[in-house]
Amino acid sequence: MSTLQNTEEIVEVNGGSIITPYGFTAAGVHTKVKRKRKDLGAILCDVPASSAAVYTLNKIQAAPLQVTKESIAKEGKLRAIVVNSGNANSCTGEQGLLDAYTMRGSAANAFDMPEHQVAVTSTGVIGERLKMDKIIPGIKDLKPMPTFKDADLFNEAIMTTDKVKKHACFQTMINGKRVTFGGTAKGSGMINPNMATMLSFVTTDADIEPDDLQQALNEVTDKTFNRITVDGDTSTNDMVVVMASGHAGNETLHPSHPEWEKFKKALQLTCEDLAKKIARDGEGATKLVEVNVLGAKTDEEAGKAAKQIVGSDLVKTAIYGTDANWGRIIVALGYSEVELDPEKIDISLGSIQTLKNSTPVSFSEEEAKAYLEQENITITVDLNIGEGSGKAWGCDLTYEYVRINAGYRT
Amino acid sequence: MSTLQNTEEIVEVNGGSIITPYGFTAAGVHTKVKRKRKDLGAILCDVPASSAAVYTLNKIQAAPLQVTKESIAKEGKLRAIVVNSGNANSCTGEQGLLDAYTMRGSAANAFDMPEHQVAVTSTGVIGERLKMDKIIPGIKDLKPMPTFKDADLFNEAIMTTDKVKKHACFQTMINGKRVTFGGTAKGSGMINPNMATMLSFVTTDADIEPDDLQQALNEVTDKTFNRITVDGDTSTNDMVVVMASGHAGNETLHPSHPEWEKFKKALQLTCEDLAKKIARDGEGATKLVEVNVLGAKTDEEAGKAAKQIVGSDLVKTAIYGTDANWGRIIVALGYSEVELDPEKIDISLGSIQTLKNSTPVSFSEEEAKAYLEQENITITVDLNIGEGSGKAWGCDLTYEYVRINAGYRT
Repeated sequence: MSTLQNTEEIVEVNGGSIITPYGFTAAGVHTKVKRKRKDLGAILCDVPASSAAVYTLNKIQAAPLQVTKESIAKEGKLRAIVVNSGNANSCTGEQGLLDAYTMRGSAANAFDMPEHQVAVTSTGVIGERLKMDKIIPGIKDLKPMPTFKDADLFNEAIMTTDKVKKHACFQTMINGKRVTFGGTAKGSGMINPNMATMLSFVTTDADIEPDDLQQALNEVTDKTFNRITVDGDTSTNDMVVVMASGHAGNETLHPSHPEWEKFKKALQLTCEDLAKKIARDGEGATKLVEVNVLGAKTDEEAGKAAKQIVGSDLVKTAIYGTDANWGRIIVALGYSEVELDPEKIDISLGSIQTLKNSTPVSFSEEEAKAYLEQENITITVDLNIGEGSGKAWGCDLTYEYVRINAGYRT
Repeated sequence: MSTLQNTEEIVEVNGGSIITPYGFTAAGVHTKVKRKRKDLGAILCDVPASSAAVYTLNKIQAAPLQVTKESIAKEGKLRAIVVNSGNANSCTGEQGLLDAYTMRGSAANAFDMPEHQVAVTSTGVIGERLKMDKIIPGIKDLKPMPTFKDADLFNEAIMTTDKVKKHACFQTMINGKRVTFGGTAKGSGMINPNMATMLSFVTTDADIEPDDLQQALNEVTDKTFNRITVDGDTSTNDMVVVMASGHAGNETLHPSHPEWEKFKKALQLTCEDLAKKIARDGEGATKLVEVNVLGAKTDEEAGKAAKQIVGSDLVKTAIYGTDANWGRIIVALGYSEVELDPEKIDISLGSIQTLKNSTPVSFSEEEAKAYLEQENITITVDLNIGEGSGKAWGCDLTYEYVRINAGYRT
C-alpha cells in the first residue's frame, strides 16, 4: 500500500478494492445459475451511504435498472447492492420487473434494512426469466466481510466473458483526513447479450450528499466509462453505482468546498483505472489502445473524436496486425463529425510522428511495427485548431473476438 | 435479356452493364500501378451527358473529388470518367491536387474533349503520390468500346479487395420509349485505406437535365448506397456518378413529368442492386444481410434503425455463427436514437418470429439455425408505432475480415 506524501497527492493503493474505504463489506457465492463460477454478490455499507448512479443510454432498459432507480430516488441512500450474473433479466416483461422487486425484497429481509436502501442489478442472457429458486436462497447465503478476498469473490460473481478481475483503489487527503476510493468492475464485450453488460461499483468513505455525489459521478463518467469502447455496443443493463459512507470525517463535500476538484480527480482516477481495465479485457483483445486528441475546439469534441478513432474496426484490426496504417486514423477522424481543418492534422503512434500538417512524414516502418507490438498503444492526434483535449480507450479487434461472439449461445 | 411486357414494368436486364444504355463505351487497362490486375479504366459518352454525383461525407476528401466537383459544376455535363485503382491520391497535399488535374488534362487530350467534361477518381492506398509516369501513358492506351467485355475490364480496373465484379442493368418505358440504366461498382471494405473506397458509376440513355438528375440521385442514394455498411467506415474517396446520354428520346424528365416516379424507381433499383452486391462482397463476408424496419414514425427513422442493426458487430458475428440471438438485435435497436415503444417491438428472422410485443416467442432453435445457414438473411423488425419503413444491407463479420484487415500494408 502506498503512503500519501503530501496533502495534494492522489495515490494508487495497491491491493485495494471496494472494501478498503471505511464501512464496506462484500461477498460472492455460487447459486448454480451459472455452472461453475460464483454468480451472485453483494456490497454492503454499515450506514445508509450517500449514493449516485448512472445507467445505460439504451432505450431498452432491463428490469433491475428501474428498481434501482426507484430505490435511489427515495432518499439517495443505499446500504446494499446485490448483483447476479448469468442472466440479465432484460426483455422479460412484467414478470421480469416482479422478479427484480422480489430480489430486492429478499435482500432487504436478509440484511435487515428497508427495501429502498437496496439496489439490484443483473448481467447475462437477455430474454430469459431469472431463476428465482436459485437467487433467493443464494441471497441468504451471502455473508459480507471486509476483506480483499471477499471483494475478489464479489468481483468473480459479477464476471461474464471477463478474463481478469478488475479492482481499483486511490487515496487522497481532504480537510487533513484520509479519503479512500475503492472500485470494481466487469465488462468485456461492451455488451454481449449472450453474457452481457458493463457494471461498476465504487465505494468511498468521503462525506458527501447524494446530489453532489451524483453531479461528480456524471462529470466523471463522461470522461471515463463513456470513453471506452470494445465493439460500439451499449447494453440494456449498464450501470455504475457509487456509495459514500462518510466515515473519513472530512467536512461534507460540495461544489464550493476548496477540495472539490481534488475529490472529483480522485473519483476520476478510480473510474478511469476501471474503465481502462475493461477496455484492456475487451473480448479477444491483446492490447489496450489509448487515443489522445489535442488541439480540438472543445474538450467534448476532442473526446468525441478520440472515441470515434478508438472504435474504428479498421484502426483496431491494423493495431492487431501491428500495421502503422495512419490512413485509417485520419479516415475515422474525418467522419467523426468534429470540427477540423483538413490541412492541419498531426498524428503520432507513441513518439513516432506519421503525419504533420496533414502531410505524410517519413518514418521507420520497423520502429513503428516494434512500437505496435507492445501491449499498451497510444495514438496522439493534434487538430491544431483549439485548446480542447480528451482521451478514449479501446482494444484491438482479433480473430478471438469473432470466435467468442460467433459462438452459439447454448 | 428480359423483355418489357408492359409500359409500367421495370425489368432487370441480364448481362447488361454501363455500356447497355445508348451512347456509352468503356475500357480497362493495366498500367503497372498494381502488380497484375487492370488498374485504370474509363467510361465515355458520345455526347456531353447530363451528369450528377454524390461524394463521401468524410471531412477529409481526396484530391480527385475536388477536381470532379469542379468539372461537374461548370455545366453539369460529362463525356468521360477516368478511374485508377491501387492509389487513392488522398492526404497527398498540393502535389496530389496537381496530379489529379494532370490526370484530367491527359484524359481530355487523349479523348479530345474539354477538361471540364472529364471526371477523375482514384481508389487505393492513402498518403502516397500517384505514379504519374504510369497513369499518363495508361490513359493513352484506353480504347473504349461498347461491349460487355470492355465494361467488365473497366470493372476489373476499379476493383481492390473485391472478390466479384458488380454490374447492374434495368429497363423501363418512359413516353413509350425504352429507357435503360446500367451500372457498375466496387467496394468491399466500406473503406480500406489499404486498398480503399466505394465507387459506383451509373449510365442511362434517359433525357434529363443535370439538376433534376442530381435531385433524383440524392433521393436514391439515401435509400441505397447510404443504407449499406460493411464496417461502419466512410472513405475519403467514396463517389457515385450518373451520366445520362439522352439517346432514349423520351420527353425531357423533370419532377412534374408523369413518369418521374418510375424513372426514380428504375434508378433506385439499379443503385440498390449495386449496393447489395457491395454489401454481399464485404470483406470476409459469407452472407448478405437485409434488415427491414417497419412501423417506425418515419421512413427516415426506419432506415436509421435498420442501418444501426445491420452495422452491429454483435449482430454480424451472431449471423456468422448462425445463432438466432435476437437479444443483440433489440439491443442495437435500443441505442439507434430512433423513437420506439420498448413494449411494442416485433422481431422475425426470415419467417420465424422471435419477439412479439417485446415478449419472447418460443421458436425452434433448429429451424432458426437452418435459416441462418442460408446465404441471404432477412431480419424484420416492426416498431408498431407508425407507418415508416426502410431497409439496410450488410454482411456477417468473420475471421476472414480480421485476416484481411490485420494484414500488413506492404
